[in-house]
Amino acid sequence: MSNRIITISRQFGSGGRTIGKELAARLGIPCYDQELIGKIAKESGFAESYVEERGEQALRGGFMASVFGDRDFYGHSNQDDLWNAQQKVILKLAQESSCVIVGRCADYILRGKADCLNVFIHADSNKRAERIVKQYGERDAAPQKRLQEKDKRRAAYYEFYTDNKWGAMENYHIALDSGALGIEKCVEILKDLY
Amino acid sequence: MSNRIITISRQFGSGGRTIGKELAARLGIPCYDQELIGKIAKESGFAESYVEERGEQALRGGFMASVFGDRDFYGHSNQDDLWNAQQKVILKLAQESSCVIVGRCADYILRGKADCLNVFIHADSNKRAERIVKQYGERDAAPQKRLQEKDKRRAAYYEFYTDNKWGAMENYHIALDSGALGIEKCVEILKDLY
Repeated sequence: MSNRIITISRQFGSGGRTIGKELAARLGIPCYDQELIGKIAKESGFAESYVEERGEQALRGGFMASVFGDRDFYGHSNQDDLWNAQQKVILKLAQESSCVIVGRCADYILRGKADCLNVFIHADSNKRAERIVKQYGERDAAPQKRLQEKDKRRAAYYEFYTDNKWGAMENYHIALDSGALGIEKCVEILKDLY
Repeated sequence: MSNRIITISRQFGSGGRTIGKELAARLGIPCYDQELIGKIAKESGFAESYVEERGEQALRGGFMASVFGDRDFYGHSNQDDLWNAQQKVILKLAQESSCVIVGRCADYILRGKADCLNVFIHADSNKRAERIVKQYGERDAAPQKRLQEKDKRRAAYYEFYTDNKWGAMENYHIALDSGALGIEKCVEILKDLY
């Protein structure tokens, strides 16, 4: 397969999605982020809201119940169906064309199956807190708490389905601190590297 | 201070030192690696071999004994003297000119005290094993075991003196997989970034 895929994993609030979109635009290839949700919903038969809430992060307050408790007589759960649909969609996209895929364990799903550049974007938590308030507005929970919770849920999901550690640098070809380097610089580095 | 410092932390066998040397040569600034040892020896009064064995990595088989057991009546040890001398030398070099510093916790020592780009170089352990055999020759211990031991000792030293986690990506502005990207590409990326 001659398509080249950039997978972007990111801490919440680090601007990883923005970097992915901008990078894809400059490279003239599609970027899949929210678009994935619709595709996975269609593939799996689940509602988009269900895919969004469960397709990348551990379920708030009950992930282990959702993966273990929910299982039918044959030992599989809705959560597993969703994971399978997600794998199928991501593999299909990688076969269709070069692209950028943000999140959803794409780095793991495509390992050994596509020519990938695996990227991780992180930033200091103060910078991320500032960013999420600007981006998503104030909430009841303090920004630092929102960051922590979101990343914890992403990590739990990733680690359950992949057996790898989320955010451990050995899983990525390049990891960038978008807070220190700036979004624009990150896009440039990745564009040059691609 | 207007000097700009690049600190390179690296897994054993990842080629971090080679990248540092080449990068410094292209930027026309000094690279401190083995040169540090002589300077630290001079500053501290310890022999170079002592500095080399103890200045960056936990002592084989007895690091905790060396930092705790060795302490005099005032609670300090040779290991601490060495750490202090090392800090002094690294701070002084950063004040003298822009430079590349390989290893020796320079990223931590200069944090908030110099304008640093903190880099971590890592690679797949098979690639590193191949490299150390080429670079340093065969030894009694298997290459994989040598890698593990060396990195474990570096991590223990770093974590003892800095309270940070060695190789955790939040401590570095950029982390690169030299095995996948290649030494030359890493040098280019860092040169452009600097």
